[in-house]
Amino acid sequence: MHILSVADDMVPAARGDEASTLMAGKIMASLFFEPSTRTRLSFAAAMNRLGGRVIGFARPGGTSLQKGETLADTIRTVESYCDLIAMRHPQEGSARMAAEFAEVPVINGGDGAGHHPTQCLLDLFTIQKERGDIGDNKVALIGDLKYGRTVHSLAYALALFKADLTFIAPEQLQMPHEVVEECQEHGASISFETDLDAAIEDVDVMYVTRIQKERFPDPEEYKKVAGIYTIDTDLLRHAKSEAIVMHPLPRVYEISAEVDDTSAAAYFRQAFNGVPVRMALISLVAGVIS
Amino acid sequence: MHILSVADDMVPAARGDEASTLMAGKIMASLFFEPSTRTRLSFAAAMNRLGGRVIGFARPGGTSLQKGETLADTIRTVESYCDLIAMRHPQEGSARMAAEFAEVPVINGGDGAGHHPTQCLLDLFTIQKERGDIGDNKVALIGDLKYGRTVHSLAYALALFKADLTFIAPEQLQMPHEVVEECQEHGASISFETDLDAAIEDVDVMYVTRIQKERFPDPEEYKKVAGIYTIDTDLLRHAKSEAIVMHPLPRVYEISAEVDDTSAAAYFRQAFNGVPVRMALISLVAGVIS
Amino acid sequence: MHILSVADDMVPAARGDEASTLMAGKIMASLFFEPSTRTRLSFAAAMNRLGGRVIGFARPGGTSLQKGETLADTIRTVESYCDLIAMRHPQEGSARMAAEFAEVPVINGGDGAGHHPTQCLLDLFTIQKERGDIGDNKVALIGDLKYGRTVHSLAYALALFKADLTFIAPEQLQMPHEVVEECQEHGASISFETDLDAAIEDVDVMYVTRIQKERFPDPEEYKKVAGIYTIDTDLLRHAKSEAIVMHPLPRVYEISAEVDDTSAAAYFRQAFNGVPVRMALISLVAGVIS
Repeated sequence: MHILSVADDMVPAARGDEASTLMAGKIMASLFFEPSTRTRLSFAAAMNRLGGRVIGFARPGGTSLQKGETLADTIRTVESYCDLIAMRHPQEGSARMAAEFAEVPVINGGDGAGHHPTQCLLDLFTIQKERGDIGDNKVALIGDLKYGRTVHSLAYALALFKADLTFIAPEQLQMPHEVVEECQEHGASISFETDLDAAIEDVDVMYVTRIQKERFPDPEEYKKVAGIYTIDTDLLRHAKSEAIVMHPLPRVYEISAEVDDTSAAAYFRQAFNGVPVRMALISLVAGVIS
Repeated sequence: MHILSVADDMVPAARGDEASTLMAGKIMASLFFEPSTRTRLSFAAAMNRLGGRVIGFARPGGTSLQKGETLADTIRTVESYCDLIAMRHPQEGSARMAAEFAEVPVINGGDGAGHHPTQCLLDLFTIQKERGDIGDNKVALIGDLKYGRTVHSLAYALALFKADLTFIAPEQLQMPHEVVEECQEHGASISFETDLDAAIEDVDVMYVTRIQKERFPDPEEYKKVAGIYTIDTDLLRHAKSEAIVMHPLPRVYEISAEVDDTSAAAYFRQAFNGVPVRMALISLVAGVIS
Repeated sequence: MHILSVADDMVPAARGDEASTLMAGKIMASLFFEPSTRTRLSFAAAMNRLGGRVIGFARPGGTSLQKGETLADTIRTVESYCDLIAMRHPQEGSARMAAEFAEVPVINGGDGAGHHPTQCLLDLFTIQKERGDIGDNKVALIGDLKYGRTVHSLAYALALFKADLTFIAPEQLQMPHEVVEECQEHGASISFETDLDAAIEDVDVMYVTRIQKERFPDPEEYKKVAGIYTIDTDLLRHAKSEAIVMHPLPRVYEISAEVDDTSAAAYFRQAFNGVPVRMALISLVAGVIS
């Protein structure tokens, strides 16, 4: 809650309406061992909006790792060039390991099948900004709930706020049992649905994720599912008028373009929210605010 | 003319002789969906010389587009990280489309077979700086006039200044009819030549472009043409003493290295001019000057 | 010695403990025609710590060179975007050539089989910082002394300080004759060893380099050598208690991870030293200090 509160204070500087010099003279190393334009640019914008500088790489090619260097050595070298590290790495646990070796703070920008904590924080921030509150919502997580790390992190987090959760997915892509159990232990009320239309009526937040073609051995099966789990203005007519639609992006077919012009479309505002949230995190871990 | 006038004011800061803070606290997203070192670095230099910051990518690999995202979605996401966008994209019309979706200004850094307006502006700026005036010149466009978007844009622009134009090219690479007609409608006086030596005598500006090998099915045919359309000091002896040689660069064989040391060689000064012109454009579209 | 003395003054700013504005408003073009994360990020950190800005590229792909442009033309174009150039290029002599064409200063960040002067300077700086003096040391260069440009540059430099040098390498990877001769001409005392254990006893500085698998036609031969030339805590027990271990990094097997926690391990401090040394060089060649 403190991070979200600091993020709220960062909004004017994140928009460029105010100049911040909180990180002036500081350097963030942005180490993307796996490409991710959105997360990388959002971190870079955050650091620059704080008056700081960014060095780093956008893909693994040409790094010392190719010469057989361990991640620990790369981190211990790069940390001598910077004041904090933001990293994405395909291997689960890599960010934690980097943090153990580094003396500078490390922010996890996604580590493979692991969590994606800054995405989760910006999702919570978006719900709070859009709805005024986090826990007092019925939130539907929709799409690929089995493999999507974003929705796992978000389900855990929303459970801590005792949110009312509905997991809407084709059966083979439903939320894993261990995630469901942990959410229930934290007091979340949970229901399961396969039918999007039927479940949407009393939902406050629709959090949509992409269903990847690769998950389906049979392309016909994929097409069927893809067609069913699409948010369009027809579907929105069955939803509450103040309900919002979120998506971690990029989207492909899951949200019809006609939704973009409705007030329900919160996903581009959500993308912007990554900037103030990451500004808050950077400033806090660097110790320039508390 | 206003852009060129602002560009002229930018020259000392573009050289690093004066510090500008016009874009301090602002972020430019530099989105190169197609690589272009020269244009990209020139834009980056311009934004940095203005005290602003640059985020972005230099090639499409690893962007969300690979996950099937539309250009419209990429733009609507990235615009929430920045105050303006400079982009290059292989597809004609993409910059215009981006500008329609974005709420921040978009500067076209080249869109495939479309125009390349910042190159055109820096070409005009160079002619004005070198010759004191734009319209009152005999300008020869030389080389591949059929496929080169740079010379199409420049021909249109020079026509607006009622310049005297000579199109010097092998027949199969002459200026397209539609470009010629539009130039004539705007009042340009136009002549056509295939022989470089014969046409050069009374020319004030020689604007040379590269003839690409790929345009010729027969390599022997290419060699012949390449040999004929080369500017060297021998040829310059037939030209006016104050004539200048321009080239959008990179050059290969079209201008002999011996020309570099003559006062006629304006092409590296022309490359520099990209910085003040882009500084002017950035400042104007961002609204920090008017 | 002057560069090292300036570098020493740069240490607080290199650590981010002090803010420097020596290069405020200035632009460094970082041109890596060959990838090198470590050197590139170290240069970028140095320029940013000085308050300057960095533009450039991290790999050759997509540069105008691919269109057939000469390095001279690339340099003469890019220099109009910046106040100095730091470059790495696979071809020996390329940095010198660039410096001849450019009117802005060019710093060589490695040119193929040629020298790597900024690495050499940071190595000297490290020896001075760690040992209090450069010449008054027995320095062992260990590993691949035949192909490693780093050790050639360092041997030359240490010879100028009349250091006591021991070249420890398998016979087929010993220091080339011409390097040995030039070192001797400058007054260095030199000995040769193949056995690491026997030679280490009275050494003050162990400078270890990687032995590349590719140098050995027979993989068994490589394995044997790799096993013998490894620094571990067992070996350090035979060394002087105040001896230090250096390495240009990345390391693979040459230094055992257990050494990292000993006070002998100077290699990560050495990596940091690249920043103040490059800050000194940048400031000196740019003429903002003298």
